[in-house]
Amino acid sequence: MNAELVAVGTELLLGEIANTDGQYISRCLSEAGINLYYHTVVGDNPERLAGVLDLAKSRSDLIITTGGLGPTYDDLTKESLCTSFHRNLVMHEPSLERIKRYFAQIGRVMTQNNEKQALLPEGCTVLQNDWGTAPGCLFEADGVTVIMLPGPPRECEPMMRERVMPLLAGKTGLCLVSNCIYIAGMGESTVESRLRAMMESAENPTIAPYAKEGTVMLRVTARAESREAGLAMNRPVIAKIREELGDVIFSVDIPTLEETVVRLLAEKKQTFAAAESCTGGLLSKRITDIPGASAVYRGGVCSYANDVKTALLGVCPADLEKYGAVSPSVAIQMARGVCSTAGSDIGVGITGFAGPDGGTPEKPLGLVYVGLCRHGVTYVRKLTLGGNGRDRVRNSAANQALDMVRRLLERL
Amino acid sequence: MNAELVAVGTELLLGEIANTDGQYISRCLSEAGINLYYHTVVGDNPERLAGVLDLAKSRSDLIITTGGLGPTYDDLTKESLCTSFHRNLVMHEPSLERIKRYFAQIGRVMTQNNEKQALLPEGCTVLQNDWGTAPGCLFEADGVTVIMLPGPPRECEPMMRERVMPLLAGKTGLCLVSNCIYIAGMGESTVESRLRAMMESAENPTIAPYAKEGTVMLRVTARAESREAGLAMNRPVIAKIREELGDVIFSVDIPTLEETVVRLLAEKKQTFAAAESCTGGLLSKRITDIPGASAVYRGGVCSYANDVKTALLGVCPADLEKYGAVSPSVAIQMARGVCSTAGSDIGVGITGFAGPDGGTPEKPLGLVYVGLCRHGVTYVRKLTLGGNGRDRVRNSAANQALDMVRRLLERL
Repeated sequence: MNAELVAVGTELLLGEIANTDGQYISRCLSEAGINLYYHTVVGDNPERLAGVLDLAKSRSDLIITTGGLGPTYDDLTKESLCTSFHRNLVMHEPSLERIKRYFAQIGRVMTQNNEKQALLPEGCTVLQNDWGTAPGCLFEADGVTVIMLPGPPRECEPMMRERVMPLLAGKTGLCLVSNCIYIAGMGESTVESRLRAMMESAENPTIAPYAKEGTVMLRVTARAESREAGLAMNRPVIAKIREELGDVIFSVDIPTLEETVVRLLAEKKQTFAAAESCTGGLLSKRITDIPGASAVYRGGVCSYANDVKTALLGVCPADLEKYGAVSPSVAIQMARGVCSTAGSDIGVGITGFAGPDGGTPEKPLGLVYVGLCRHGVTYVRKLTLGGNGRDRVRNSAANQALDMVRRLLERL
Repeated sequence: MNAELVAVGTELLLGEIANTDGQYISRCLSEAGINLYYHTVVGDNPERLAGVLDLAKSRSDLIITTGGLGPTYDDLTKESLCTSFHRNLVMHEPSLERIKRYFAQIGRVMTQNNEKQALLPEGCTVLQNDWGTAPGCLFEADGVTVIMLPGPPRECEPMMRERVMPLLAGKTGLCLVSNCIYIAGMGESTVESRLRAMMESAENPTIAPYAKEGTVMLRVTARAESREAGLAMNRPVIAKIREELGDVIFSVDIPTLEETVVRLLAEKKQTFAAAESCTGGLLSKRITDIPGASAVYRGGVCSYANDVKTALLGVCPADLEKYGAVSPSVAIQMARGVCSTAGSDIGVGITGFAGPDGGTPEKPLGLVYVGLCRHGVTYVRKLTLGGNGRDRVRNSAANQALDMVRRLLERL
């Protein structure tokens, strides 16, 4: 089966966004063993879109489109595909009801142009969108399978994974079973050089590395006749990777450090609190991203101003004066202070220079101290994260703090 | 001048990397006032690449390729373009010398296949690559301008900016000047239905809407002979949109609510603090994303557990009992409490049910109260954000809280 992707949206041609949907879907098709030969990006222009679709129809068995399913007059994907494949658009009542319910829930008036989102090609398989309003769909015509997905990545990615992949598995007869190994505190190139021989000789299961925001993921994928058979094939490979990499692996199949930590806290019956200066609430935000965090997370303090460090966390003003806000002593006092003020078993304190301004030759940008406290016992770690930009320094600091908590919890 | 991009590389089709070169070049062309109509990604396959190049030649005046200039046998871009445009490849001695020097510098033996990188189309303009080994080039043939750039973004991006842009500026003589209008509290479809007539009739400047994470952006773009002339053309259009939409416009050319709020706080000489329950630090994180936030942001409290609300924010335990944590009274007390504990002029308190669990028929998922306090004067707003998923509820709640602060500041 030869596939091609067509992304529709002038915002891609203006460079406002990158075609990350294209990358995501490409990876999924590659895992599914489907050959992908072309990506095309075209704007919201009916003639050019029609030309692209006619060409795709002439050379591919599977066309996946992203974008152009929204409510506005320049959302044209469905109309153009229906013209190319001689289909009618008909109102899909269940989708219309879902969209109406959505607007009712958020208490907004649904303008009439939103109804357009529930117009779908006659006889198509509707791909329910649980992550947004515009449904996707699949139809087959003239020997070609056509799949339409919404453009926003937070809708497109789960739609691809949860709605499209199972349908494609049905077409290829084999199922792909993946496990993901997550790594913190070791860079992608080191992971790769440690595992290179294993990765290069791996055929089934395959091993593929991906780096994302300071963590590395290894996807182990077996092609098997059943999910159970695939999992059994992956198991010894995962064990071998564990042997090679050791405790930099923070989880298998739990994609984030925050979720790993929330689960470990629950398992070990510990509560947690965070005191943040340079990360400014990022760690707290990430912990509370996880449903169920309220059972283990007591709360946090963002102590941006020095006197807030003193007032809310009991950091000694003389130490702030003597060692500076970015110091091991203050990080420890913040961790200890938040444990006591929030009444938690474990607390962290993060203080550093995120930039772009600040920092001195002795205390450069990217210098961060993370304090950790459990039942009065404290640890501190110095991080030198360089002048890599505010976001990266903050993300890395939060990652390292979470990883310190993860390691502490694993030892309990 | 109509342009298209052709990215050559199987790694893009396997999803190993995203086509970030495509985004970068698109943005540059947009700035240069050049219409870009297509991106195509094709693998390292001679037949398919030739097909893509012939199609591009038939419909575009400017073709920019990325990738496929390297030393290996599957780097085919130059060969394919020379076939399409009937050119010979000839050895470019200065480039060959550069490559030899490069290998000498890093102390490696130069294998013979590296000489291939110095083969360039006869009569082309060589684009010297100071960021890697493979030079780029430009030639004109059959009425088409062809530009080849190396694929690695750390080479492609500076080559585009420093080598290609000056050449293009000479060709067009026009520039595109955009202003962006940012909107909160009104959905994309409402914005569009209010402005449809204006958008449809707009030719120069054009008006285009984009929705992103709970805010809407309208891009007003003029084609003009100078930046000043373009800005002058945009001004009356922006004024007319302001007249139509009113105070849902939170900024022109400041892309986020948090940056708008941080700037307004500085301008009005006010300090700010945040008390968060359901948003769990998200608002604090977003404010501290902005460089310079430390001048106006005192800090925040994430009061996830009820007794943290009492201990750190002074929320009355009897009120927590009587009205529940998700109530107007608690939101107001959180806002007032954080003002006094952090010593800020303005404070917000956010409490709600983000889901996926929790909520009752009377207090459903997505119910959020935002309290606002300035110098003891308090306001509260009830939000019903529906069961849209934890992330969306939290993002919307943070957006609305920021927008309340923005409106308060604008009135000072």
